[in-house]
Amino acid sequence: MRILLYRSDGQTGPWAEDLARALPGVDTLAWQEGDLPAACDYAVLWNPSAGLLAQLDKVKAVFLMGAGADALLKFGDALPSVPIVRLGDAGMAVQMAEYVSYATLRYFRRFDEYEEQARHGLWAPLPPHVKEDFTVGVMGLGKLGLRVVDTLRGFGFPVRGWSRTQKDIQGVACFAGMETLDDFLRGTRVLVSLLPLTPETNNLLDRRRLATLPQGAYIINVARGAQLAEPDLLTLIRAGHIAGATLDVFRNEPLPAPHPFWDEPRITITPHISAVTIRAEAVRQIAFKIAAFEANEPVDDIVDRNLGY
Amino acid sequence: MRILLYRSDGQTGPWAEDLARALPGVDTLAWQEGDLPAACDYAVLWNPSAGLLAQLDKVKAVFLMGAGADALLKFGDALPSVPIVRLGDAGMAVQMAEYVSYATLRYFRRFDEYEEQARHGLWAPLPPHVKEDFTVGVMGLGKLGLRVVDTLRGFGFPVRGWSRTQKDIQGVACFAGMETLDDFLRGTRVLVSLLPLTPETNNLLDRRRLATLPQGAYIINVARGAQLAEPDLLTLIRAGHIAGATLDVFRNEPLPAPHPFWDEPRITITPHISAVTIRAEAVRQIAFKIAAFEANEPVDDIVDRNLGY
Repeated sequence: MRILLYRSDGQTGPWAEDLARALPGVDTLAWQEGDLPAACDYAVLWNPSAGLLAQLDKVKAVFLMGAGADALLKFGDALPSVPIVRLGDAGMAVQMAEYVSYATLRYFRRFDEYEEQARHGLWAPLPPHVKEDFTVGVMGLGKLGLRVVDTLRGFGFPVRGWSRTQKDIQGVACFAGMETLDDFLRGTRVLVSLLPLTPETNNLLDRRRLATLPQGAYIINVARGAQLAEPDLLTLIRAGHIAGATLDVFRNEPLPAPHPFWDEPRITITPHISAVTIRAEAVRQIAFKIAAFEANEPVDDIVDRNLGY
Repeated sequence: MRILLYRSDGQTGPWAEDLARALPGVDTLAWQEGDLPAACDYAVLWNPSAGLLAQLDKVKAVFLMGAGADALLKFGDALPSVPIVRLGDAGMAVQMAEYVSYATLRYFRRFDEYEEQARHGLWAPLPPHVKEDFTVGVMGLGKLGLRVVDTLRGFGFPVRGWSRTQKDIQGVACFAGMETLDDFLRGTRVLVSLLPLTPETNNLLDRRRLATLPQGAYIINVARGAQLAEPDLLTLIRAGHIAGATLDVFRNEPLPAPHPFWDEPRITITPHISAVTIRAEAVRQIAFKIAAFEANEPVDDIVDRNLGY
């Protein structure tokens, strides 16, 4: 069996070694821009280029080295009809729970304000926020979203969830579909996005929807930057309606050097590190799924192209 | 029944109202410096002054509005022999779990470094730390410590504990007694103190013990400032042995205006807010314990003066 490997950063070596170890007898091919299509059984990709598309219709399935399928699905009809499989969890859920807990606790416990006070040598306890005023609204209730919900509930935060299809989670008010989005937002103090990027979620958080959040709301975006209308967020932060945002993802990454987000103290920027792929876990998962394909058994996390994830 | 109330900040009014509501028919007396002793059944105190001591031997029990007994026990033999009862949890455990999780995640996920990078407009993912290198060592395994341990284990951190007497906690390496302290410290990357302040824990974290921690260790002190030798911590931070400290408590509070901690960027200062007493919970607990005293039933959280907590 032969597996094609491609990463836009060229770092395929460790993946080749790990896959060879997980699937004894397997052969790997590091595809590079300009290479001709080669006979391969599977492809394992990160951030693929258009030049790969002619290759992909010669494989039984394409595996993505991440949870989001948008970087491949953007090729639309040019994509061959082969199954596309994204990572399920592979160590990302706990990382998302860490990131979102950190950002939520930072706002809830006013650590951002205490840091600012300390920079001025100021010792001044602030009135604590109360959890009743700190409902966290999680958009996207897949594997990552559910782990985030669980962790926040462990701290005693009221949690509500929003997703495309109706979910039923003990102790969590679940909203489903576009027609419930405004109601969901109206009762959300801390908005967390874990949604996939699809045509429906592109620019989902625009000026009107951000204004639907209550006064003093916070935004945590760990999904995809294109879901958020960046100028609208700035407008609402400057107007004092949104109290702060912690953003790990941006419409253009790296976030360009002159960008107003860098200069806005109420926006916390991290360089797309909320959940990195843990190679060992990802390889273990991909090897398991390849074995399932070979045995004609059902495979999890196959991307639905109509839904976009 | 009559309850004496005292707080060094004078804010007894809301306590009087809540206690009257929790114990119908009860009468409260707000004692002030210079008042003569009055006939009272119980006393409820925060940060008591020496002037109160003559009063305290006329009550059946003294209740503290916090978890620490050091502010009362410091009077030593001048204290009447009446039972002293501290708060058990009263909403403090979850606050400690929030604070310690925040500080631990900040170091583990390098959020402090990302904040510094963002201040300079720098987009640069850093190599992630791994949990195997991030054992959290929790000193003090009472109600608050156990909640902290549980929460950190939920994130997947390796956790070890140290306490005066041997504990047995599933999945946690438990160390007990002074003779195990060095072993405990040697394997601890993030040291969390939730210990009571007693003669044994005063200056417990001195230069030698801080140096016993591995290179790159972090300190989180949410207990009492006097447990930490402040100049020794500075020395070890400046020498690069300790990578950072998040401190909520200090030998002198408020932390004085000219104090080297304010100017050390690797020390994060909060103004003793890691766990504030939630009055409603505290009053509910005190009312329950007063009813137990009146009924001659056992009462939890009575302070052992020999142990100091």
